[in-house]
Amino acid sequence: MDESSPALAVDIGGTKLAVGVVGNSGRPVTWGQVPTPRDVDAEQLWRTVEALIDRVLDEAGLTVPGSLAGVGAGCGGPMEWPAGIVSPLYIPAWRAFPLRRRLRDRLPGVPVRVHNDAICLTLGEHWRGAGRGKGNVMGIVVSTGVGGGLILDGRVIEGASGNAGHIGHVVVDPDDGPVCECGVRGCAAAIARGPALAAWAQGQGWRPDQPDASARDLADDAAQGHAIARAAMRRAGQALGIAIASATCLCDLEVVSIGGGLSQTGALLFEPLHESLRAHAKLPFARRVSVVPAALGQSAGLVGAAALILAGDRYWAGD
Amino acid sequence: MDESSPALAVDIGGTKLAVGVVGNSGRPVTWGQVPTPRDVDAEQLWRTVEALIDRVLDEAGLTVPGSLAGVGAGCGGPMEWPAGIVSPLYIPAWRAFPLRRRLRDRLPGVPVRVHNDAICLTLGEHWRGAGRGKGNVMGIVVSTGVGGGLILDGRVIEGASGNAGHIGHVVVDPDDGPVCECGVRGCAAAIARGPALAAWAQGQGWRPDQPDASARDLADDAAQGHAIARAAMRRAGQALGIAIASATCLCDLEVVSIGGGLSQTGALLFEPLHESLRAHAKLPFARRVSVVPAALGQSAGLVGAAALILAGDRYWAGD
Repeated sequence: MDESSPALAVDIGGTKLAVGVVGNSGRPVTWGQVPTPRDVDAEQLWRTVEALIDRVLDEAGLTVPGSLAGVGAGCGGPMEWPAGIVSPLYIPAWRAFPLRRRLRDRLPGVPVRVHNDAICLTLGEHWRGAGRGKGNVMGIVVSTGVGGGLILDGRVIEGASGNAGHIGHVVVDPDDGPVCECGVRGCAAAIARGPALAAWAQGQGWRPDQPDASARDLADDAAQGHAIARAAMRRAGQALGIAIASATCLCDLEVVSIGGGLSQTGALLFEPLHESLRAHAKLPFARRVSVVPAALGQSAGLVGAAALILAGDRYWAGD
Repeated sequence: MDESSPALAVDIGGTKLAVGVVGNSGRPVTWGQVPTPRDVDAEQLWRTVEALIDRVLDEAGLTVPGSLAGVGAGCGGPMEWPAGIVSPLYIPAWRAFPLRRRLRDRLPGVPVRVHNDAICLTLGEHWRGAGRGKGNVMGIVVSTGVGGGLILDGRVIEGASGNAGHIGHVVVDPDDGPVCECGVRGCAAAIARGPALAAWAQGQGWRPDQPDASARDLADDAAQGHAIARAAMRRAGQALGIAIASATCLCDLEVVSIGGGLSQTGALLFEPLHESLRAHAKLPFARRVSVVPAALGQSAGLVGAAALILAGDRYWAGD
């Protein structure tokens, strides 16, 4: 472990909850994760988070507050920032849930900072991953939702309400796309988020008898050569390629780093994505963008949540 | 005139060239403009710019360099920034034209700064117009092209190569849209830029015998109630509404200020634009964005070019 105190990092997404103890090297030294419980109320979900925190702190042999530099948490958006009052689109149990206050009450005496989970991934990738040393980076999480974060001209972009980075709600197919959870037709997320992909594939005849088949199953089948599953991955890649093209023209990005479960599928996602990006971003400056899987893999979000604390001078502009 | 020295401001667009002397109040005190000449070579176009500069300086009774704080210029994108080597998409005469160096040679002894014309409009609107006091502002120029600029978290966004803000190349209709000058199908600019609008209307039967009919004619006819002309304005508003929705979700914007010739058409453009924006941006934070015509009207670009000099500490990050 690093000599300086580590941070407790919390990552709350629509698919999984993860908690880790992260040192200054940017590696989680102790961590745990559980599936995000469904059909629970706000307090039941909070108790699941609390239990995971307790378990990880216990396994790490850490007592609070003395041994921690602070607590950084990423949570699905949108949220009131920096108050950390969260209403994650794909976690209906939490609407205006005071996550930051709850974490403070539970872990008193150390700084507690909450930001969008995809902004945390972006920070992680900028701090210790694929965006290291670059000034203009977008991070994307492709999972239950499609989230994002922006670092432009070397600084984290917060926007008017701390919600900058919502790449999943860039419109890519306004005429024929499915309607998004947010109510808009043709958002990138409405096409490319895992459950939407699985639903589309089922509509095409994939695993018709398994209503619970997931995007992970879809990716597995695509890897095995299943035609509909491959078409679904292609569809996701095309939608993400258009959204990334638009974001690259708008923000003059250098690196786009993609994390989340679906980012682990390699060429199945990235080949159609790159093809679509090339077709939709042709201005010379926009052609230079590099789109890569998150170098920190599935821990990018946790590492970035820790960066809110361990590199707070660079990455935290809230109170 | 202000007590401090004024700036010479230059605005080079696909439709018009404008030069003005702008004081610290943000009002042009002397200015002139000419249509951007067509079918000329790089040097002929430069001589037109030079002649306009000479005329305006002469009319203002200014001698260079003593009486000027500097020269700020906006030019259509893309460009190599901050070198000011410009390749404006809709001014084919200039490809890798060294505008900044030419201005320096012509007006030696004072600072010379060049940026994208739509970024200049954005600066103007932030400095003295509709975005004053706001931290998250996008400026858009709807004219021969559709350009843009971003101020996020209170700072001008340059991006990897100084080209951030290209809202015209956000994709809004990838399946059925026309092909843009940049080579991509369905960019906002391919639909909403003036010449594209006029061409579309002509394809629908508007002024069939007048191949030179312009977007200005189209706007005039729309104001008179011409059905096809109104449909064309509606089409532009819808495309811009989608692009602004995407940019608002991505950048968490507070104010979008629209300048350029077509922005002067009032409700004909803004009603369908607002309707489309409402339909395509439904996340609570994104609904709060305010989209308005440029408060500085047609001089926003000149005022912003002057801001590169007169408020350079806030707006100029180049060398």
